[in-house]
Amino acid sequence: MTGDKLSNQMWGGRFAAGPAAIMEEINASIDFDQKLYRQDIEGSLSHAAMLAQTKIISHSDYEKIVHGLQLIRQEIETGSFTFSRKLEDIHMNIEARLSELIGPVAGRLHTARSRNDQVAVDFRLWVREAAQKIAQALKDLMEQLLMRAEQHADTLMPGFTHLQTAQPVTFGHYMMAYVEMFGRDLSRMRDAIERMNESPLGAAALAGTGFPIDRFMTAQALGFREPTRNSIDSVSDRDFALEFLSAGALCAMHLSRLAEEIILWSSAQFHFIRLSDAFSTGSSIMPQKRNPDAAELVRAKAGRLNAALMGLLTVMKGLPLAYSKDMQEDKEYVFDGVLNLELSLAAMMGIISDLEVNKEAMKQAAGSGYAIATDLADWCVRELGLPFREAHHITGRAVALAEQKKCSLDELSLDEFQTLHPDINAAVFDVLTIEKSVESRNSFGGTAPSEVLRQVAYWKQHLVTA
Amino acid sequence: MTGDKLSNQMWGGRFAAGPAAIMEEINASIDFDQKLYRQDIEGSLSHAAMLAQTKIISHSDYEKIVHGLQLIRQEIETGSFTFSRKLEDIHMNIEARLSELIGPVAGRLHTARSRNDQVAVDFRLWVREAAQKIAQALKDLMEQLLMRAEQHADTLMPGFTHLQTAQPVTFGHYMMAYVEMFGRDLSRMRDAIERMNESPLGAAALAGTGFPIDRFMTAQALGFREPTRNSIDSVSDRDFALEFLSAGALCAMHLSRLAEEIILWSSAQFHFIRLSDAFSTGSSIMPQKRNPDAAELVRAKAGRLNAALMGLLTVMKGLPLAYSKDMQEDKEYVFDGVLNLELSLAAMMGIISDLEVNKEAMKQAAGSGYAIATDLADWCVRELGLPFREAHHITGRAVALAEQKKCSLDELSLDEFQTLHPDINAAVFDVLTIEKSVESRNSFGGTAPSEVLRQVAYWKQHLVTA
Amino acid sequence: MTGDKLSNQMWGGRFAAGPAAIMEEINASIDFDQKLYRQDIEGSLSHAAMLAQTKIISHSDYEKIVHGLQLIRQEIETGSFTFSRKLEDIHMNIEARLSELIGPVAGRLHTARSRNDQVAVDFRLWVREAAQKIAQALKDLMEQLLMRAEQHADTLMPGFTHLQTAQPVTFGHYMMAYVEMFGRDLSRMRDAIERMNESPLGAAALAGTGFPIDRFMTAQALGFREPTRNSIDSVSDRDFALEFLSAGALCAMHLSRLAEEIILWSSAQFHFIRLSDAFSTGSSIMPQKRNPDAAELVRAKAGRLNAALMGLLTVMKGLPLAYSKDMQEDKEYVFDGVLNLELSLAAMMGIISDLEVNKEAMKQAAGSGYAIATDLADWCVRELGLPFREAHHITGRAVALAEQKKCSLDELSLDEFQTLHPDINAAVFDVLTIEKSVESRNSFGGTAPSEVLRQVAYWKQHLVTA
Amino acid sequence: MTGDKLSNQMWGGRFAAGPAAIMEEINASIDFDQKLYRQDIEGSLSHAAMLAQTKIISHSDYEKIVHGLQLIRQEIETGSFTFSRKLEDIHMNIEARLSELIGPVAGRLHTARSRNDQVAVDFRLWVREAAQKIAQALKDLMEQLLMRAEQHADTLMPGFTHLQTAQPVTFGHYMMAYVEMFGRDLSRMRDAIERMNESPLGAAALAGTGFPIDRFMTAQALGFREPTRNSIDSVSDRDFALEFLSAGALCAMHLSRLAEEIILWSSAQFHFIRLSDAFSTGSSIMPQKRNPDAAELVRAKAGRLNAALMGLLTVMKGLPLAYSKDMQEDKEYVFDGVLNLELSLAAMMGIISDLEVNKEAMKQAAGSGYAIATDLADWCVRELGLPFREAHHITGRAVALAEQKKCSLDELSLDEFQTLHPDINAAVFDVLTIEKSVESRNSFGGTAPSEVLRQVAYWKQHLVTA
Repeated sequence: MTGDKLSNQMWGGRFAAGPAAIMEEINASIDFDQKLYRQDIEGSLSHAAMLAQTKIISHSDYEKIVHGLQLIRQEIETGSFTFSRKLEDIHMNIEARLSELIGPVAGRLHTARSRNDQVAVDFRLWVREAAQKIAQALKDLMEQLLMRAEQHADTLMPGFTHLQTAQPVTFGHYMMAYVEMFGRDLSRMRDAIERMNESPLGAAALAGTGFPIDRFMTAQALGFREPTRNSIDSVSDRDFALEFLSAGALCAMHLSRLAEEIILWSSAQFHFIRLSDAFSTGSSIMPQKRNPDAAELVRAKAGRLNAALMGLLTVMKGLPLAYSKDMQEDKEYVFDGVLNLELSLAAMMGIISDLEVNKEAMKQAAGSGYAIATDLADWCVRELGLPFREAHHITGRAVALAEQKKCSLDELSLDEFQTLHPDINAAVFDVLTIEKSVESRNSFGGTAPSEVLRQVAYWKQHLVTA
Repeated sequence: MTGDKLSNQMWGGRFAAGPAAIMEEINASIDFDQKLYRQDIEGSLSHAAMLAQTKIISHSDYEKIVHGLQLIRQEIETGSFTFSRKLEDIHMNIEARLSELIGPVAGRLHTARSRNDQVAVDFRLWVREAAQKIAQALKDLMEQLLMRAEQHADTLMPGFTHLQTAQPVTFGHYMMAYVEMFGRDLSRMRDAIERMNESPLGAAALAGTGFPIDRFMTAQALGFREPTRNSIDSVSDRDFALEFLSAGALCAMHLSRLAEEIILWSSAQFHFIRLSDAFSTGSSIMPQKRNPDAAELVRAKAGRLNAALMGLLTVMKGLPLAYSKDMQEDKEYVFDGVLNLELSLAAMMGIISDLEVNKEAMKQAAGSGYAIATDLADWCVRELGLPFREAHHITGRAVALAEQKKCSLDELSLDEFQTLHPDINAAVFDVLTIEKSVESRNSFGGTAPSEVLRQVAYWKQHLVTA
Repeated sequence: MTGDKLSNQMWGGRFAAGPAAIMEEINASIDFDQKLYRQDIEGSLSHAAMLAQTKIISHSDYEKIVHGLQLIRQEIETGSFTFSRKLEDIHMNIEARLSELIGPVAGRLHTARSRNDQVAVDFRLWVREAAQKIAQALKDLMEQLLMRAEQHADTLMPGFTHLQTAQPVTFGHYMMAYVEMFGRDLSRMRDAIERMNESPLGAAALAGTGFPIDRFMTAQALGFREPTRNSIDSVSDRDFALEFLSAGALCAMHLSRLAEEIILWSSAQFHFIRLSDAFSTGSSIMPQKRNPDAAELVRAKAGRLNAALMGLLTVMKGLPLAYSKDMQEDKEYVFDGVLNLELSLAAMMGIISDLEVNKEAMKQAAGSGYAIATDLADWCVRELGLPFREAHHITGRAVALAEQKKCSLDELSLDEFQTLHPDINAAVFDVLTIEKSVESRNSFGGTAPSEVLRQVAYWKQHLVTA
Repeated sequence: MTGDKLSNQMWGGRFAAGPAAIMEEINASIDFDQKLYRQDIEGSLSHAAMLAQTKIISHSDYEKIVHGLQLIRQEIETGSFTFSRKLEDIHMNIEARLSELIGPVAGRLHTARSRNDQVAVDFRLWVREAAQKIAQALKDLMEQLLMRAEQHADTLMPGFTHLQTAQPVTFGHYMMAYVEMFGRDLSRMRDAIERMNESPLGAAALAGTGFPIDRFMTAQALGFREPTRNSIDSVSDRDFALEFLSAGALCAMHLSRLAEEIILWSSAQFHFIRLSDAFSTGSSIMPQKRNPDAAELVRAKAGRLNAALMGLLTVMKGLPLAYSKDMQEDKEYVFDGVLNLELSLAAMMGIISDLEVNKEAMKQAAGSGYAIATDLADWCVRELGLPFREAHHITGRAVALAEQKKCSLDELSLDEFQTLHPDINAAVFDVLTIEKSVESRNSFGGTAPSEVLRQVAYWKQHLVTA
């Protein structure tokens, strides 16, 4: 992708030896960068329009170029275009075909442009579109989660810390925790899109050009906010790809957490949910078995995004300006990252949409392990004005007593409570069930069903414009 | 950092065996999280004020707590505080000391709070402040680069692609390419700060609380835009650390590129710049030798940020909600990342500020290798209306002729040019020097000195509010 | 660490500006490389002995040097040595102190040596010793696992695939799976030690030396197999650190898997094991709660090793030969990796050693979910000669029948079995319990207790020389 | 890849909803794992032979199976086999086709085997073969480097530290530094091959089997040293892939260093080498320009191996035993790693083989910058017995004098030298040329041509059996 060579055939004279097969293998990018054909043609059309408008090329040349490019797009989309490795990349493949179709006029298209700014604009367009698709997929998943959250705003389940039962929460509250995560991912995607939304077209090889081009015009035509401000940076920069991958890696990490929970919850030991047939695989002889294959794969995909991010960071480390061929390696990381992130989001949406909640199992687990002990302690602080430490001491003794009697806390008698502290009164029983525990936690963002519904309402409104 | 244990001493009865030395070693975080002491005290002061305001604690208890916390801050800052590993972390260390100082009232501070939301708020405050410092350091570096760019807006140097001389550019233009990169880094830091600027305080262990707290009040007191919306997410989320590290890794990558160039430029072979004594090391016997140690270390620091980012992504992968002890590992990555990024930015600012530009060497290199050949070709297209391919053909022959005569392109005679194409006229010499080449590239963002100065002006104004 | 500068003071004349504070901060390595003091002195002692033996220095100078170095070692170990950042690194700190103690003779020690080969040999010695310690810790952990495996060779538990109950196995068999993993880690450490066991001492700055040194002598004295064969590579190579970190990252990954299982197993839902007080933390009010903090931290430490490995790979990428200052960054990654790997191995040994197995819960889980369905299918194939598919069909129907009757497979009657296939006979009941299932799987490496004990015996013997 | 499901068609009844398109997309691995067809068939042939030998299946069934499998191999290799995504993976695709070809007998092949051990053995066979190919490619590259080293054993060039000229070395010596690096890579590959060379076949789903199989027989038939010792580990282990990728990442890092040097050396500024047409690309208008595209791509490929390693480490982190679907993600990382490493090694071999050395430029650079100053200092120590520090002081003054006179050190007169120290005599001129400097450094592994040739001889012999 050097800005100063036009066509491989031209090297002929000088490169008598001919590019070895190995060179073709390592050098040619057409196998993967053909994905950029649409962006390449779109970029060329805008460039040609600008060249005509600024009188750098004639209107009739412009019309020939447009005609040729449209024909090529059609050929590619109908599968009649033959991609050639000899021609290295998508730009040269299209350029050579354009020459065949419209003759030397094709060359005029490359006025005030080089492969360096051409690939930069093509790839930005591609990444921008991919980021927009991911943003939409995030919104879809969030809507799904919102629906489940609303439906299960008061479905009780244990909240865990250290995978130990800590306090009862609701399943709706749990789903909303992931809405927050994916909401941040969405917001990061939006920021990334905004930041990358500058057009490098017209940076030429690296130094700009002496032709009287109008970079604002091409920027606008391609939907960019404005042209980039520095031509050296324009052809050397791959931040847009890296920032997309960074945001993607965080999103994949969030997905891996949710996937892990789904795997745990669908184990025989948890038994909190039942996955649909569509997103699990079964056993021909063990009908009750549902392997959470889709969730496991989503969990694993975090590796793909970490890999892509780390790979491209490695490539860019210590690279002098401006364009170096190393940068051709940017695409496969992003292509792989996008593919796997999209797939993971879609699979997770399906999993969430389909899963059946086993309310009884969840509720039973929420009630076990004296998960409401902190409610008792809080009550002693709040209602009796006891110091924290004393309240904890009383609670510890109450739990020990209940454990000894193999009963739950609300099955202790008031007399028994009063042996622990004389001021305890019947009102204590108002906090001693998981339902009441959950209802009571109505601080902003808390697990009380009313709060969960408030969170849902917030996001429903917020998501419209997010 | 479980929300439901109060103090290590209390385990006494049950953990008869006593925590083994190994457990203390792996479990205690006080060796590194003491860095958070200021944030921890700040968070506690705001929490206490809110508890008093909402009448959850009495005003006199509040005053005792404030007094105690201020005393502790003083003790820590004067070095008289004894940190204890037995007390595991900064929160327990301060809590225990507060108990010593003000008695059981200390316990009231922990009403409606747990270590889970406490550490979340402390660490967010720390990261927010660190991100602000990095943002300031980025601005300082950009100002330095702007100054050099302005000074060298017309200093000629070769622009490279593939580390081969491609086209002449100016040193100012080059510096501005880095202004763009660091400008994006700055903008990413701002976005990260904005996104993390929500207060998790009041999420308690994970489910919120039944105490009538006012999370908006503490949020405001601590300078947060608003409280977080979901208590489970609030204690499970480390996106703020990861997003900071992502932005940091990109920034460190940019620094590594500039460092690489500085190392190349100060080699005997390039000889483009001379580093100051302050940012190089010398040899007692080879006076002309200046090892670019600082630049080499800046280049290497890209590894630190990649490491921190990858490490924390690994930690968070597949972690079920809510708080797990794994998350205690978040701090050292960020501390190390911040330290090394700050240092790299400071060192780079010093290097750039001090370096002497060898204008002659740069100019000579810019003129070698027929770097202006594309200018000739462009001229043929622009002025003679020749097709691209023919223009290139003529240029190739002109270069071959000059090479054969061991002269530069502008040393060919008009007769010689006309043997290549009869239409070439004397005006061609107007583009055949590197000065004219550079001046001519005045497209938006191009390397023409006038354009570079325009870029400088843009950033000078833009940086004020960035 | 340039080979050609002797002492910072000497730059004085030339570096009039004085090294800025920032330069000291980024450049000085003494804060971390003082860990190498013992290796540095050991290396110097061997070098001095060789210089004396080859008559490059006199015997009396040698004795002064030895005396001085021993004194310095004592000073460091008793804490009376003052490390100075101005003197940058451990080598210069010791060199300067040696000069103070024995005068100009100290300089003779640096004959035929530079800081480049000095740090290379110091760090290799350190890494070799660290690798040996890790190898020993691996052996200790394996012994612990072997002990538990022997003890629980016939303790039944469910074997999982996809975290779904698949087939019954034994806890001993499970422990032995980890013995295999750590056995590979041990073997990788041994290979790494063997490969790094070459002495770079005598490579000097990068080109070797004209002094008649004997590199075999110093190699032998320092316990190396032989000297390295190429002096440029000797000072440019950090493979020994990277290979150590690679092996460490795999080991940390294995530990994270075992840690994950321990966390799952100690959840209320699994309830397979009970952690000791020493390796968990509790709650003052929920006595049954045991947070698996140590296991969580071990799981998280995988991040540290990934980070260190990726960080150093980033540093070394694209670094031209020979020594560059970037390489000073090698140490902190390795120091951090070693510390955290050692700690993880020790913690895991404690966890495994202390944990109590809940045999009843494990056995009950092993029997649930028709985990022995495959045994029935295999029996039909083996004993009745039925095709695989038909056997699976029969088994599926048997499971469906049992599910319908809410009974286990061995509670179906022979009549009922014969409705599924007339040839089924009473012998079928011989495989329809989890005990029999497990016993039957006595293929090499299988889960039958006899096989597990064979595996234990193999490793007990093998570990002696491993 | 669950061991307990036979065929997708069978789920039909239960999975009424049908696997959604998204599930097929994320779940099916046939698009990439068809690469394993040869290994899958090889594994099945060995398994069938063992089943027949141990009388688990009849000889006639065995013959049918062999016939069917051979037919399938032929179909795949001639392109007439239709791969189906519905059938998920290579194992099911082959199994289903075998059923079509030979009927229910096909099912017998799956006696005492599951997809879990099947994929484990297939992938090990593939990785082992890949590692062997990489080992051979390493040997080829080393031979190429040896050839160049021998040819250039006395070609002078500057040795660099910090990219500053340090001391003269020879190009042969430089090449041999890379021989050492690739020699370690080779040795790591050999160790990895040895460690992975155990057969998991017969581990079945995870617990072994009750059929009287002979795992030693299949191990031997497939060229494995022995069977694995633990069936749970056998299906859970991907160390063989990770260790291969670790070794690959180190190798790619070495290649990136050499690539960086080639890029530097072929810049106009260094001008040390000229790349061949085959491994560079040119400019149609700047004939002297040769872009080192192949070297740049090799440098960038370090990112691929880092990515693959970090990706798979992420996948495996915290994964409970035994098989989880996450592990299906192992293949693409390794396939990509192998492809890119092979390509990089081949490209580098071509580059090295073809490059032309510009001896004059190298020699001139070696002589510049008073690179032999240390030789003068060493001479003063060695011949005059001066203390190190004094010798350095004299040398510094000599260099300053020469610099002032704009001459080289050997152009100073004896008189001038004697003003620096009266004992200096004419013999000093014996070390004051770069040829003599290089010749003098004949310590073991040093840069003296005689030493370089000794290193070459060592490796020529060593490589035969490496």
